[in-house]
Amino acid sequence: MSSDNGLTRREELLNVATKLFAARGYHGTRMDDVAEVVGLNKATVYHYYASKSLILFDIYRQAAQRTLAAVHDDPSWTAREALYQYTVRLLTQIAENPEGAAVYFQEQPYITEWFTDEQVAEVREKETQVYEHVHGLIDRGIASGEFYECDSHVLALGYIGMTLGAYRWLRASGRRSAVEVAQEFSIALLRGLIRDETVRTEEPLGARVATANRAGAAD
Amino acid sequence: MSSDNGLTRREELLNVATKLFAARGYHGTRMDDVAEVVGLNKATVYHYYASKSLILFDIYRQAAQRTLAAVHDDPSWTAREALYQYTVRLLTQIAENPEGAAVYFQEQPYITEWFTDEQVAEVREKETQVYEHVHGLIDRGIASGEFYECDSHVLALGYIGMTLGAYRWLRASGRRSAVEVAQEFSIALLRGLIRDETVRTEEPLGARVATANRAGAAD
Repeated sequence: MSSDNGLTRREELLNVATKLFAARGYHGTRMDDVAEVVGLNKATVYHYYASKSLILFDIYRQAAQRTLAAVHDDPSWTAREALYQYTVRLLTQIAENPEGAAVYFQEQPYITEWFTDEQVAEVREKETQVYEHVHGLIDRGIASGEFYECDSHVLALGYIGMTLGAYRWLRASGRRSAVEVAQEFSIALLRGLIRDETVRTEEPLGARVATANRAGAAD
Repeated sequence: MSSDNGLTRREELLNVATKLFAARGYHGTRMDDVAEVVGLNKATVYHYYASKSLILFDIYRQAAQRTLAAVHDDPSWTAREALYQYTVRLLTQIAENPEGAAVYFQEQPYITEWFTDEQVAEVREKETQVYEHVHGLIDRGIASGEFYECDSHVLALGYIGMTLGAYRWLRASGRRSAVEVAQEFSIALLRGLIRDETVRTEEPLGARVATANRAGAAD
C-alpha cells in the first residue's frame, strides 16, 4: 500500500521516525510520537516495526548501505580520482539525507544499549569497510608513488571526520552544492598528498575532472 | 573541601557526570546515577548543582573555554604556523578530555531542549568564535599570497570536522600522540594550501617546526 507521495507506509514511517530521532534523539522519542506524526494508530506502527529499536536499525542499515554504495573503485582510476569520486558520492548522499546521517552519528555511542550483539556486529563491520576503503585508497596512492608517504590510518580517520561530519551543515538546499564542497575538500587534501608538481597544480582531482571542468568553462 | 585525588567535590562530580553523559547520554542519565557513582547523597549533589542541566552547561562552558584557549594567534606567525599550532593545542585537549568533547558533540542537537535561551546564545557565540578563528586564518593566508585561493568557509568547516571529530578515536593513551596526529593533519592540509613549492615541501608547518624537527633528528 502506498500513500499520496508514492512512498509505502513503511517508508513513510521510517522517514518520520528519522526526522524525530534526529531532532529529539532516539531515547527522547516514543513510539506514540512516531504514530502521532505519521498519522497511524500505534498497533499499525507495531505491525510494521515490532519495536522502536528495529526502526533505528533500519535507519542504520540504510545509511551504511548508502555509504558503501558510494564505493565504486574502478581499478583504472588513479588514487586521487577514486578519492575524489568517493567524496562526491558521499557528500551528495549526505546532502540528500542529512537526518539519516545525523541519527547514525548521534546514536552511535549508545547502540550497544539498543541493538543485539549481531546487529552491533553488522554495524561495526560496515564501518570497518568504509574505513578500509579510504585507508586502502591512500595506501594505493603511496605505493604507486602518486602520494607522499604519510600515516594513512590517521589521514583516513581525518578524511572520514571531514566528509561524514558534514551532515552537521551540508544541505541539498544550501548555497554550495555537494559537488562544490567535494571539490573544495578534495582539492585541498589531494594537493597536499600529490607529489608530482604538474599533476598537483593542473589536475589534482584527476585528468577526467580537469578535462570536464575545462569543457564546462568553455561553454 | 577536596577529596583524596586533589579535586574539589564539585570537580569530581563534574568528572563523573561527564563520563556518565558520554556513555549513556544526558537524557539517559539520572541525577541518582550521578549521586551513586560519585558516592554522595542526592541532596549533596543538588547542593552543588541545582539541576542536571546546570551540570551539562558547565561541561559545555569548560569545553568551549578549552577550545578558545587554544587560540593563540601571534601576529608574527604565518597563517600556516598559526593553523598548525592551533591544531596541536586542539588535539592535545581532545586527547586529554575526550569525554568532555563527546558530551559536547553528542548533546549539541538537543541543547535548545535543556538550556535557556541565554545559555544557548552563549554556546553559539563561542562556536562562532572558533569557526571565525579558523576561517580568519585561512583568509589571512589567502590575502598574503601564502595560500591558494579557496573557499575558506567550506575549508574551515572541513577543518573543524577533521580536528574536533577526532574525539571519537583520539586518546591520550593511544599509539599516536596528539602532536603526531596534528602533524599528519596539518602537513596534508597545509601542503594542499601553500602555493610556494619550496615552503610547501620543506617547511609546511612553518620555519619554527621545521627547525625543531631538524634539531630533533640531529640529536
